[in-house]
Amino acid sequence: MSNYGYAHGVGETIQSVERAAAILRLLASGGRQLGVVELARAMDLPKGTLHGILRTLVHVGFVEQDATTGKYRLGGTLLHLGSSYLDVNELRSRSTNWADALAGRSGESVWIGALHEGQVLVIHHVFRPDDSLQTLQIGTLLPVHATALGKVLLAFDPYRELTTALSAHTRATIVDVDVLGAELEQIRSRGWAAEIEEFEEGEVGIAAPIKDQRGVIVGAIGIRGAVERLTSDGGLHLTALSYVRDAARAISRDFAR
Amino acid sequence: MSNYGYAHGVGETIQSVERAAAILRLLASGGRQLGVVELARAMDLPKGTLHGILRTLVHVGFVEQDATTGKYRLGGTLLHLGSSYLDVNELRSRSTNWADALAGRSGESVWIGALHEGQVLVIHHVFRPDDSLQTLQIGTLLPVHATALGKVLLAFDPYRELTTALSAHTRATIVDVDVLGAELEQIRSRGWAAEIEEFEEGEVGIAAPIKDQRGVIVGAIGIRGAVERLTSDGGLHLTALSYVRDAARAISRDFAR
Repeated sequence: MSNYGYAHGVGETIQSVERAAAILRLLASGGRQLGVVELARAMDLPKGTLHGILRTLVHVGFVEQDATTGKYRLGGTLLHLGSSYLDVNELRSRSTNWADALAGRSGESVWIGALHEGQVLVIHHVFRPDDSLQTLQIGTLLPVHATALGKVLLAFDPYRELTTALSAHTRATIVDVDVLGAELEQIRSRGWAAEIEEFEEGEVGIAAPIKDQRGVIVGAIGIRGAVERLTSDGGLHLTALSYVRDAARAISRDFAR
Repeated sequence: MSNYGYAHGVGETIQSVERAAAILRLLASGGRQLGVVELARAMDLPKGTLHGILRTLVHVGFVEQDATTGKYRLGGTLLHLGSSYLDVNELRSRSTNWADALAGRSGESVWIGALHEGQVLVIHHVFRPDDSLQTLQIGTLLPVHATALGKVLLAFDPYRELTTALSAHTRATIVDVDVLGAELEQIRSRGWAAEIEEFEEGEVGIAAPIKDQRGVIVGAIGIRGAVERLTSDGGLHLTALSYVRDAARAISRDFAR
């Protein structure tokens, strides 16, 4: 007799729903298909237990089973739910026009993100206005310590929770907690963050916080671009910085209306 | 004592997971936040039962509770899962370059869709290559009978299941099942579909099917644009049609490699 799915009473969560969510996260993390054996091993569950949850997830369209390999992958319903999340997201609806304008003024790609489980969830992305090949990054999770968006969100987060290790993405990534703490103090006092080749070689990010009507920081807007364009003599391009801060203030004012 | 969450044995689905999925669909359908009372009414469940599932969904990040109103909305994890779905989607990964090329050749917006629960799930969307304001529609569900993508997918679907009524989107929408059946026969024999102001006034769609390595139709690619550009003297612009069919064949060949 399996023991999943019982309701234990008020205040507790439902085990089968938690396990279903864990399966979806596993299928998302690898960017690939997984078989029952691999899933059972990763979740430390009997195959029979797993089958019941997988069958239900297939039934509701959250998971698809490959007709050839029999392996499981994420289902199309999740894409639809993800796009519905964007439809109700107030930060996104209030900021898309300003993001387009910022891309036009700065000539760089624009990113809007919010803290999500210790990382930056990209909720909007406007391509750099040129003909270069770019990949849409909406829904991507970015490291909080290595990006300007992440640092500005962390600096204004009352909990400042660092849930993951400070992994090095380049030689310039801040991997020391104390160094990061000092940088966050500075970001908090000046009201914006920059990141110079800390996430990707040759790339610079600049970001500023967005406040809602209560004055709570609900997200950040920023640009990313080539170090040659966004810095000169080792210093940040101040015009680009002013565009980013202008956009962040405009969206915050829009919230207050 | 609530009765959700029991595993009834092999072959059955898990009620609490099904209910969790139903809550997520409800939150997605309205494009808004819902309170416990509204959700309990819509799902015909006692508030206590609903609370247990909602608490779990909040715990796993699939649902967020508004700090001010106490109402529930979709959570950011779904956006991330949705973007992960796109990462593993083979149709999308094989077709993005061809979609960009088709947008360039045709000068129109490009759409790639697949059948999902009787509708067309948009899995890729390339903006019309001009400076006009356009909204990204990835993850949107389109009506199967009123769009070129939908009609071509339906024509080649062995089940041809029409799960929804043929609702009228414009005066030209096909709302008669027999008329639609005759049109699908024609689409099937000629290998492409068109839609002239059947979904939106002033807009035309053209689409062709994409086959995978087994020869199974797994999706469709199409363009949408102004009736003035894509038709002349009431007839379809044949050059534009040839571009769409070229792209569909190219992606199908890519699958066969």
